[in-house]
Amino acid sequence: MTVDFNATKALFDLPEGLIYLDGNSLGPLPRAVPARIAEAVQQEWGAMLITAWNRAGWMEMPRRVGDRIARLIGAEAGAVVMGDTLSIKVYQALASALELRPERRVVLSDTGNFPSDLYIADGLLRTLGPDYVLKTVAPEEVAEAIDETVAAILITEVDYRTGRRHDMAALTARAHAAGALAIWDLAHSAGAVDCEVAAGGADFAVGCSYKYLNSGPGGPAFIYVAPRLADQVRPALSGWLGHESPFAFDLAYRPGTGIERMRVGTPPILQLAALDAALDVWEGVSVQDLRARSLELTDAFIAGVTAKCPGLDLATPLDHKSRGSQVSFRHPEGYAVMQALIARGVVGDFRAPDILRFGFTPLYIGLDEVNRAVDILAEILATRAWDRADYKMKAAVT
Amino acid sequence: MTVDFNATKALFDLPEGLIYLDGNSLGPLPRAVPARIAEAVQQEWGAMLITAWNRAGWMEMPRRVGDRIARLIGAEAGAVVMGDTLSIKVYQALASALELRPERRVVLSDTGNFPSDLYIADGLLRTLGPDYVLKTVAPEEVAEAIDETVAAILITEVDYRTGRRHDMAALTARAHAAGALAIWDLAHSAGAVDCEVAAGGADFAVGCSYKYLNSGPGGPAFIYVAPRLADQVRPALSGWLGHESPFAFDLAYRPGTGIERMRVGTPPILQLAALDAALDVWEGVSVQDLRARSLELTDAFIAGVTAKCPGLDLATPLDHKSRGSQVSFRHPEGYAVMQALIARGVVGDFRAPDILRFGFTPLYIGLDEVNRAVDILAEILATRAWDRADYKMKAAVT
Repeated sequence: MTVDFNATKALFDLPEGLIYLDGNSLGPLPRAVPARIAEAVQQEWGAMLITAWNRAGWMEMPRRVGDRIARLIGAEAGAVVMGDTLSIKVYQALASALELRPERRVVLSDTGNFPSDLYIADGLLRTLGPDYVLKTVAPEEVAEAIDETVAAILITEVDYRTGRRHDMAALTARAHAAGALAIWDLAHSAGAVDCEVAAGGADFAVGCSYKYLNSGPGGPAFIYVAPRLADQVRPALSGWLGHESPFAFDLAYRPGTGIERMRVGTPPILQLAALDAALDVWEGVSVQDLRARSLELTDAFIAGVTAKCPGLDLATPLDHKSRGSQVSFRHPEGYAVMQALIARGVVGDFRAPDILRFGFTPLYIGLDEVNRAVDILAEILATRAWDRADYKMKAAVT
Repeated sequence: MTVDFNATKALFDLPEGLIYLDGNSLGPLPRAVPARIAEAVQQEWGAMLITAWNRAGWMEMPRRVGDRIARLIGAEAGAVVMGDTLSIKVYQALASALELRPERRVVLSDTGNFPSDLYIADGLLRTLGPDYVLKTVAPEEVAEAIDETVAAILITEVDYRTGRRHDMAALTARAHAAGALAIWDLAHSAGAVDCEVAAGGADFAVGCSYKYLNSGPGGPAFIYVAPRLADQVRPALSGWLGHESPFAFDLAYRPGTGIERMRVGTPPILQLAALDAALDVWEGVSVQDLRARSLELTDAFIAGVTAKCPGLDLATPLDHKSRGSQVSFRHPEGYAVMQALIARGVVGDFRAPDILRFGFTPLYIGLDEVNRAVDILAEILATRAWDRADYKMKAAVT
């Protein structure tokens, strides 16, 4: 391994003493971000005003930043663009895929998918008409369920609850063999595992930037369209910045070239500036290095908890190939256990009904934190420190 | 008038000497914004990390900030929510309206609408099926064209090119009489004129925040749904934060209560923080004061240009009732004239094919700037200062 992960840790502004294992929900603040946002606000917006769209390169930011993410997901340069939220990008990808398979009516997903992807599919299919169907099977049954009625599979590579990782290349090949398209949601993959969008054959990929890519709350999403398809898709969300010539103000829509047509409205420049600065932490880090270190950390956590924390059931696969960069355990009082952990400075999160979820992010988490987290968890369980009324009372957002 | 507009001007960080008449494209930086963003970045994201969704009130921001905008557009409290871009909000409003009128197939708009609204309608109607039609007539022909085939009218209140203002109450009443719904785009109205969404009877209203509301580049959009309809609409863009219980992670979508269901994905907190701070400038300003001052400014600019600038054709109505808060003139070399103006410190913008566009924003533009802008424009025209090759060479973004 060639990366010095102590050096990357110094690039983040983490509260002293906190063991932050929730970067899979909201990544921490990279030190380069505040100055970059202040620059965008004062030197660009404040001083250049409207001319900053050209002079500060704002108009090109969604593509330029998209290229930086392309490297981290194994995509071709020029095949990724930023904007909107992940839910919107799922809608765009799925609408495009269905229009490319006009004779098919089934979208196949799995019960381990993030619910919003299923909700969005549901809304789109209702709009398309009553003969469209969203079919949802167990994660391990997806491959079997792909047949020639399926227009597209809509799969999240890493399960947000269990951390189980699908085999992108294998499922995509199976989809293609049946004439279906493959849409991959990389929310829990980008910046977490060694994604291989191009090599894996994905037709579309989408993801968010505020988890492992540390862009801050509500940072923009990304969308990838395979270059072989990018000029064929007709955007359902046909906004002006996806037009071939937005500033001609033609009354008729003409899609822009390639991935440009996946742009919709005016891009969120301040959040893009935060993301752009946040991506600096990846300079010199290969996704292979990242992956190796991630497995080292999750292996260590699993081994430690298994040895020291009776009463927890591992929900994450032991097999490396089937594991993302998070580890989850089930516990009947999972919510209260997590509150006790947070009170002791170990921040993971809870997902209903009984999942304790811990994200391992090599850029700022090391083996020392892993071992301390194990010891604190072991002590909480041994002493039943979680068994308090205030820990059991659920907050609105967890 | 009870507002001291010199005091409101002091709330903005405007470059010294610049006459900024382009706040209808990108509002300038309010002085309160940098500190508020820095707080959201460092004290909230940096220090609170994931807990800021509760502790810093992030989850409620789209509604809380929406309420601040509700006052400025004459909407009921609790009827507005922030998020996404204007194009996305147009899609949501139109999809909802069409689902409320399932037996009708026509969407009526006008050629003065902002093209993105038409593009978005086009994409949605294609998704809905081949029997849906987007009918576009001249602005003055909208009222006549409303008949019982029309499901919804989709109208921008103030024309982005000419500044002509539609009569919201009259067109809405006409739409309702024909059984159609009315969707109003307030991009050039909110913060510019005395919008009356509730009194005007609008069913849906949408708008952006980066023009007259000064939220910065790519600030979030807003959507209003009339309370009488809010619990009836079924979102087409059914994202998790519009779910009745987002953190239950149910596999099936159930729309949230009222306007909450118009939320889609994770809100852009940093841009919302900028908007929230930007809205402070409106404390103590009524839209009636704003409107009176706006008409005073546009009257003065029209009178000055008419008297001193031969060769320009007024494109904006003289009639107050039909005027927004911008003034536009046509000139065959409009692009070059605007470049010459910008070089002299008067920033308006150009819209193809021949429109010089000037936005008048009472909170930071006064009569002194209006008069100086007239004099500089008169001199540029008198001396043909615009007749230079470099002024005629168009940039990509104007």
